[in-house]
This record gives sequence, structure tokens and C-alpha cells, in this order.
Amino acid sequence: MDQLSIHVQLTNHPKEKPAFDQLSFGTVFTDHMFTMDYTEGKGWHDAKVVPYKPITLDPAAIVFHYGQTVFEGLKAYVTQEDEVLLFRPDENMKRLNRSNERLCMPAFDEELALAGLRKLIQIDKDWIPNVEGTSLYIRPFIFATQPYLGVAPSKTYRFMIILSPVGAYYKEGINPVRIAVESEFVRAVKGGTGSAKTAGNYAGAMKAQEVAEAKGYSQVLWLDGKEHKYIEEVGAMNVFFKINGEVVTPSLNGSILEGITRKSVIELLQHWDIPVTERQISMEELFEAYESGLLEEAFGTGTAAVISPIGELFWQDKKLVVNHGEIGELSKKIYDTMTGIQTGKLPDPFEWRMKVEL
Amino acid sequence: MDQLSIHVQLTNHPKEKPAFDQLSFGTVFTDHMFTMDYTEGKGWHDAKVVPYKPITLDPAAIVFHYGQTVFEGLKAYVTQEDEVLLFRPDENMKRLNRSNERLCMPAFDEELALAGLRKLIQIDKDWIPNVEGTSLYIRPFIFATQPYLGVAPSKTYRFMIILSPVGAYYKEGINPVRIAVESEFVRAVKGGTGSAKTAGNYAGAMKAQEVAEAKGYSQVLWLDGKEHKYIEEVGAMNVFFKINGEVVTPSLNGSILEGITRKSVIELLQHWDIPVTERQISMEELFEAYESGLLEEAFGTGTAAVISPIGELFWQDKKLVVNHGEIGELSKKIYDTMTGIQTGKLPDPFEWRMKVEL
Repeated sequence: MDQLSIHVQLTNHPKEKPAFDQLSFGTVFTDHMFTMDYTEGKGWHDAKVVPYKPITLDPAAIVFHYGQTVFEGLKAYVTQEDEVLLFRPDENMKRLNRSNERLCMPAFDEELALAGLRKLIQIDKDWIPNVEGTSLYIRPFIFATQPYLGVAPSKTYRFMIILSPVGAYYKEGINPVRIAVESEFVRAVKGGTGSAKTAGNYAGAMKAQEVAEAKGYSQVLWLDGKEHKYIEEVGAMNVFFKINGEVVTPSLNGSILEGITRKSVIELLQHWDIPVTERQISMEELFEAYESGLLEEAFGTGTAAVISPIGELFWQDKKLVVNHGEIGELSKKIYDTMTGIQTGKLPDPFEWRMKVEL
Repeated sequence: MDQLSIHVQLTNHPKEKPAFDQLSFGTVFTDHMFTMDYTEGKGWHDAKVVPYKPITLDPAAIVFHYGQTVFEGLKAYVTQEDEVLLFRPDENMKRLNRSNERLCMPAFDEELALAGLRKLIQIDKDWIPNVEGTSLYIRPFIFATQPYLGVAPSKTYRFMIILSPVGAYYKEGINPVRIAVESEFVRAVKGGTGSAKTAGNYAGAMKAQEVAEAKGYSQVLWLDGKEHKYIEEVGAMNVFFKINGEVVTPSLNGSILEGITRKSVIELLQHWDIPVTERQISMEELFEAYESGLLEEAFGTGTAAVISPIGELFWQDKKLVVNHGEIGELSKKIYDTMTGIQTGKLPDPFEWRMKVEL
């Protein structure tokens, strides 16, 4: 199936676009969407771009009951020269197929999905906001559609891509956030689904978030599920610490999501010859570094926020105020460089960008 | 909101009923369904019984992305006197609200939901199969409907009940199944969602099941997520072992589902003065009991299968053949008693049954 076989049906009722300087996150969607269906024995078929419209499913569809669903998040940016750039979209499609594998869902052709994405963006290109800090958020997702109440992988699926022009993920912007170290709830454990981008991981994480918010914190820092000792992620992001000049991030251990921003930040630090290590790091070690005055910076990484500096960590009645609650110098440099590369304002020595032909 | 406020709209196109002696599990649905909607600030509203029909949702609905969804499973039986019986439906509604709480979803009025269920069953009573081993499977479920890509609890939800006339869950019937002890994958860990009946637990479990099936086993025996040492569940069921005259089942530790069949079996055993203990039990201990000839019976418990005897356990290249691969005497007695009470063939000393007025 090549790009030519992506059928296109344009809307007759284009929606009014929102003001690009007043965007929130993930509430407004563009005029079109990409869809493709899977049927056991037939494979993926009927790839098409169609007007954005509701999904119709049998009440017994497996997604409602047994949660077979995976997703991705990435962004498109429009440059000052009116070029449209995607950031490492091939990595997202690869990860989506890895998530599929974990959830017993069928692999798809990554080239076809990328072609579908490009076609969709070409059609909805006027929806890409051009205001500082904004972007077009891209949400590919796949879900089980077979109406069947037995616990077994679905025989039919739908792959969709929807687009949403977004402002900054955190309304407070790049300001450091206050984080509570989670002591009761667990996000994931080795052997579970933590390294897959699947709905259940996010549903399960909401309770801890709710409790943290009630105490005045923005997010939680997740510890491992076995010993409740080692740092895993922060909110729905990967996490980095600068300790005595060295940058440390938890190693991929089977329960941590393999973040694409995480991977890019590691590559960027290596390019800058700044020491960066992927290893196990305990909350105790972090606290000792803090006590010794060696914890210099802390930040989360993810597609939505790119870099989210951590200003304070609350752990066992102790407050760790990082860099006086200000964004650190390195965090700022990473943020500026990452967003500079993403938006086309800086050169792209890593060939991370994919230009969408318009 | 009382039962009077459940609006009823009957179908104009009743479907053809399947042959009740050829039913499979969870593939055929009745003519009607119960639905009720939740809106933040307004609460649950619009409780109604309407014709069974597809769900229409925005592609950005939270259920597809962040998996906020919980469910229940219970059964209705028709007696030889044409009475319709439910088995402990109040327990299911209580557990559904407990699952709601874990997933940051709004509590519902259990009495209203039970009234909705009774109304629905009254209307679709001719769909309750009356052949030995069959029943009307009832699936209440709730899912997040708000179109929003931020990771946060939905502000809108739908509660639904659908009905499916079913044959036996396992085609092989009450025959003992062969089980592989899971050594790599983990179903749940304390602090996660294992004790809630939510989609993500089931999606994450499919991979282990797939691997086990490829090796010729029906299900997996799940060990704990921390040490991979203690027994938790079997497939999607609770698990019991009879060891030297005593019945043992893993204690509720935060990662095990609080099964209603599990609870009923414990109460039944206590009623019979058969020693039954809820405690931690390791795979090693089980193996030692087997080696000493003290492992007398093993079985899973759940709504779908009621009792599912285990004929063989495969663990670390060792085969534990339980009771010569035959159903044990006690397992059979529990199955006969439970199904006898459920179907009205035996007295109900525990007042587990709820009769549906027709």
C-alpha cells in the first residue's frame, strides 16, 4: 500500500479556527483525521483522510472493557519561512509498534502511517499555529473494536490520527513546578505495561495526581514498584537530575517509558560533552546529594512540555528546593535548544526534523 | 432519582434470539441496554432503558487515550419455576463504586443502578437462556467520554449495562485446565490498579496469556510483582488450593481482585466447617506441598466460569499434576452448590439471591 492508496475525502463544513494566541491544550481539533482499519486475515486496510467526526462502536467493543489501546504524541511546527516540521516522527511510529506488540495488537506499516500523517498535515496545514510556544499536537492512536466480552485480543482494530492546535502544556509555562514524591501509589512495575504507551498506565496514575494536587503539588515523582526506593518518572514525563556537574536519568528498566524527548536530551548532552548517565538512582541518593549541596537542577522531559523544570520535591516531610526554585541554566539551555531545533530557529545537526512537503 | 425516573424506550426491531443450546460467550447481545450519563456539576442523569445500539464518541474521548473505564460481570438465571434470579448484584455495584474511586471516576447510586438492571432484565427476560449451564451474562461498565487530550480525570462519563445470553465460559466445560506459572510478566503490584476492575489490568494480561497458549496452556498463574514469589491470581480469576485438608487462597493484598465468587466460596467453606485461610502463599510452598503429596486440589473462581479446576501447573520446568488431572471432590461440591444456589435448584441459606420481579 503506497501513499497513493490513501483515499482523501475533504470536509464540506470547515470549522472556525481558534485564536492562535489563546490556545489551551488538547481541546480543539482540526477539520480532518486519518483512519485505517484492521481485520484479522485481511490486515490493515482502507487508509484514508476524512472529515473529523465521531467514532461509532458497539457497546461490547473490547476497548471499553479490556483496554486494548495504544497511542503516541508528537508535534508539528511551522517555521518563519512557512515550512512545516515534524520532530522525529519515525521514532513515534516505532514506539507505537512496540506498544502494539506488548498489548497483543497487530503491527502496522510505519511508512504508510507516516505518509498518512503527512497527507493529513498537508490538508490541515492552516491549523498549525504560528505564535511563540504553540504547535500542532499530533495524536496517533489504535484501539480494539471487536464486540466480544471474552478476555482475548481483538480481531479488529482502528488506527487514527487526530490533530489539535495547542498552546503550552503547562499554563504556568516554563516555570518550575512543585512535585510530591509518591509514597503509596505505583505507576508500573517490571513485567507490566510501564514501557508501553497504553491507556491503562495513565488511568492508574490519575489517583496519585489527584492526591498530590489536593496537597498543592503539580505532579508526583514515581518510585519503583518493587522496593519503592528508586526514581522512575515524574508525572507523565521522564526525569533528569544534574548532580555535581553530571546529568543522571533513570535507566530503562522495563517499567519506564522510552521517551523520545528523553533520548534526544541524552544525545544533545553527549553532543555538548556534558557527562550524562542512565542508571538506577534512589530517592535516598538524591536527598543526600541535595543535603551536600550537589543537586543542581531537576527537570522532566516529554513531548507536551518538552522540558519541565522541577523547583521543589516533597519527600517524607522534607522539602528539597532545587536551584532556589528557579529554572536551572542547563535546563534552560536544553529547552531553548530543543524548541529551537523543533521550530526551525536553530540548525538541526542530528537530522531530527522531517519536513512536510506542502 | 427513583425507579420511576428510569425512562424506557422499547425497540421496534426485536432481534432473532440465538439457539440457547448453542451459545458461546459474550458474542450475542439482547434487544435493550441501560444507560445513564454523568456531567460534572450536574451528577448522574438521564437513566434510561433504550434499544441496544452503537456508542458514538468524539475521537478525543478520554477512554480511548487514558483508559478511564471500569466494569463488572454478573449473571441472571431463570429457574424451573420461571423465576429470574441475580447472584449478589449489590456486591457488584459496591465493587464498581470502589473501582470508580481508584480511577478518579464519580460514584453512582447503587440502588438506582440495581433498579435500572432489574428494569432492563424485566424487558429482555425472554433472552435469559434456560438450558443447563447457560445464563444471562450482565456487563455494567462506565467510561470517560470527555474529548480532552490532557491527562486528567474526565468531566463526563457514561454508565451502561448490556446483556448477553451465554453458554459455558470454557468450551471444555468443567474439565480441569493446564496452567503455566508466569515467570516474566506481572499482572499487578501493590499501589497499582490490581484490586480495581479496570480495563488496563486485562489489556496488560493478554501477552502472558498469548505466550502460555502458544506453549499449550490455557491460562497463567500470576505471581506477585515485587518478588515474583507469591501466588496472586489465575488468568482472570482468584485461585484456591486444598492442601492437606485445608483450603488456602491468597489474601487481599492490594493487587488482587476482591472476587465475589472468591468471597462466596470462602463463606461456603466456613459454613461447611472446612478450614479455609486467606494468607500469603509462595509458589515454593505450593511445590513443596505437591512433592509431599499434600496438594489435593486447585481451582480458579470467577463469575464467568464459577469454578475452574486446575489439572496441571507448569513451573520452572516442573509439572505439578493435581489430583491426577481430574476435578477434585471438593471443587466439584463447591461448583455444584454454587451453581445450584445461583440457578435456584438448591436453597439459599446465605440470602445471596435477588429475585427480579417480572
